[in-house]
Amino acid sequence: MDNRPIGIFDSGIGGLTVAKQIIQTLPHESIIYVGDTARVPYGTRSGDIITKFGLELANFLLRRDVKFLVVACNTISAVAYRQIRDISPVPVIGVIKPAVIKASRVSKNGKIGVIGTVGTIKSDAYGYLLKKFNPKTKIISIACPLFVPLAEEGLHSNQATKIIANDYLKDLTKKGIDTLILGCTHYPLLEDVIKGTVGSAVTIVDSSLPTALMLKERLIETNLLSNNPNPTYQFLVTDAPERVLKIASRFFGRSLQGKIKKVSLED
Amino acid sequence: MDNRPIGIFDSGIGGLTVAKQIIQTLPHESIIYVGDTARVPYGTRSGDIITKFGLELANFLLRRDVKFLVVACNTISAVAYRQIRDISPVPVIGVIKPAVIKASRVSKNGKIGVIGTVGTIKSDAYGYLLKKFNPKTKIISIACPLFVPLAEEGLHSNQATKIIANDYLKDLTKKGIDTLILGCTHYPLLEDVIKGTVGSAVTIVDSSLPTALMLKERLIETNLLSNNPNPTYQFLVTDAPERVLKIASRFFGRSLQGKIKKVSLED
Repeated sequence: MDNRPIGIFDSGIGGLTVAKQIIQTLPHESIIYVGDTARVPYGTRSGDIITKFGLELANFLLRRDVKFLVVACNTISAVAYRQIRDISPVPVIGVIKPAVIKASRVSKNGKIGVIGTVGTIKSDAYGYLLKKFNPKTKIISIACPLFVPLAEEGLHSNQATKIIANDYLKDLTKKGIDTLILGCTHYPLLEDVIKGTVGSAVTIVDSSLPTALMLKERLIETNLLSNNPNPTYQFLVTDAPERVLKIASRFFGRSLQGKIKKVSLED
Repeated sequence: MDNRPIGIFDSGIGGLTVAKQIIQTLPHESIIYVGDTARVPYGTRSGDIITKFGLELANFLLRRDVKFLVVACNTISAVAYRQIRDISPVPVIGVIKPAVIKASRVSKNGKIGVIGTVGTIKSDAYGYLLKKFNPKTKIISIACPLFVPLAEEGLHSNQATKIIANDYLKDLTKKGIDTLILGCTHYPLLEDVIKGTVGSAVTIVDSSLPTALMLKERLIETNLLSNNPNPTYQFLVTDAPERVLKIASRFFGRSLQGKIKKVSLED
């Protein structure tokens, strides 16, 4: 048993979709979530900068004595997972492997689509792992850079979002995928439009639940589960304008009003 | 005469539209341009963070012995102009006052629209200055947060951009403005869509030329003009992924291939 908190981090607030699933799946675990809202988004930046910022987030949490790190951001997981694992004295999981395992299980025709930020798609982290699980998998990867701002602006069912989704996703449908990985924590907010575009025959795989379940398995294996009846939740961000507070509640699925604290990563 | 460079800075690469006009208007001036592409965009962040980042950019240039600072970013000009002027030993101009003077001159009915980022609109810097020039001015301000990513993704004439532009701008047309200030250096890239939405009777005012002309006046007044027949141009960014290099050339109006250098603001 280990009642220390789990550290969860993201470039911004998209990772709250993962935090929410972790809280639901592991009700005795305390968590510290940190989102780098002062520098979000990471998805359009270079590998060097994504790695630098990712390591700063990980070190911030490690200084707070967390027992486990969850990289709740596809871009950081895709680009800097190895570097974070290398510096971390505690176990680390990202959001990519859990989604890859689930997608490999559910796909029947072995044609899997992956959508994500420019950084995630360019890294080919999903393609690499999908092939490792099944070398015969055919992977069609597409960067959808406008999905993050569209989700953040709440344009979930706007006609403009449908047009942009169609532009991004038409090739996936043509190539006959039966499974689509939402390789960005923002994309579940656009799931209806994405489903409407690729068709209901395609199974959508979102990282959040598979990541929470993998975390549970790993906590059991490593004897790190908590039995705390009153776990604590800390939500930290590096910048907290009104807009972030509003959007954060949307990602978390319930109000975080008054519960988010601003911090500096140097603290 | 003073042959030291002019320092120009922006949250990213949008300010290159201003740098281009300065180079054309003042052909003997050397410039150092710095864009904070590792942390762009600023427009959605809090005033505190915009001010902190803006001061870091200004100090980076001041350490390089510039003779004049140009804040080529509407968000930084709107939120942190005063703080930058307070710490700067050299003169400073922003992009807001030049656009305000021009708009006040060209508007006939005194109804002026202002569009910009959330940070710029929230600051009300345009409204404040427009009223100072003419207290009878009626100002309609609207934040258009999706215009920056749409411009960066090159969706200049996409149907989705037209729908989003119509959603943002329909109120401006209803309220009978005759002049519209593009209060963000990215927006000139969407000028056709914006014109198409507000109608050809509305005069569009973009900061870049008025800012270059005001800079020229101020250099003459302060005896700081250069007579260097071979001025130098430095283009510096805090992160330089391929994407930035490609978009930068679009903003600058000609190729910057191989001419952009990556720096750290701590240097």
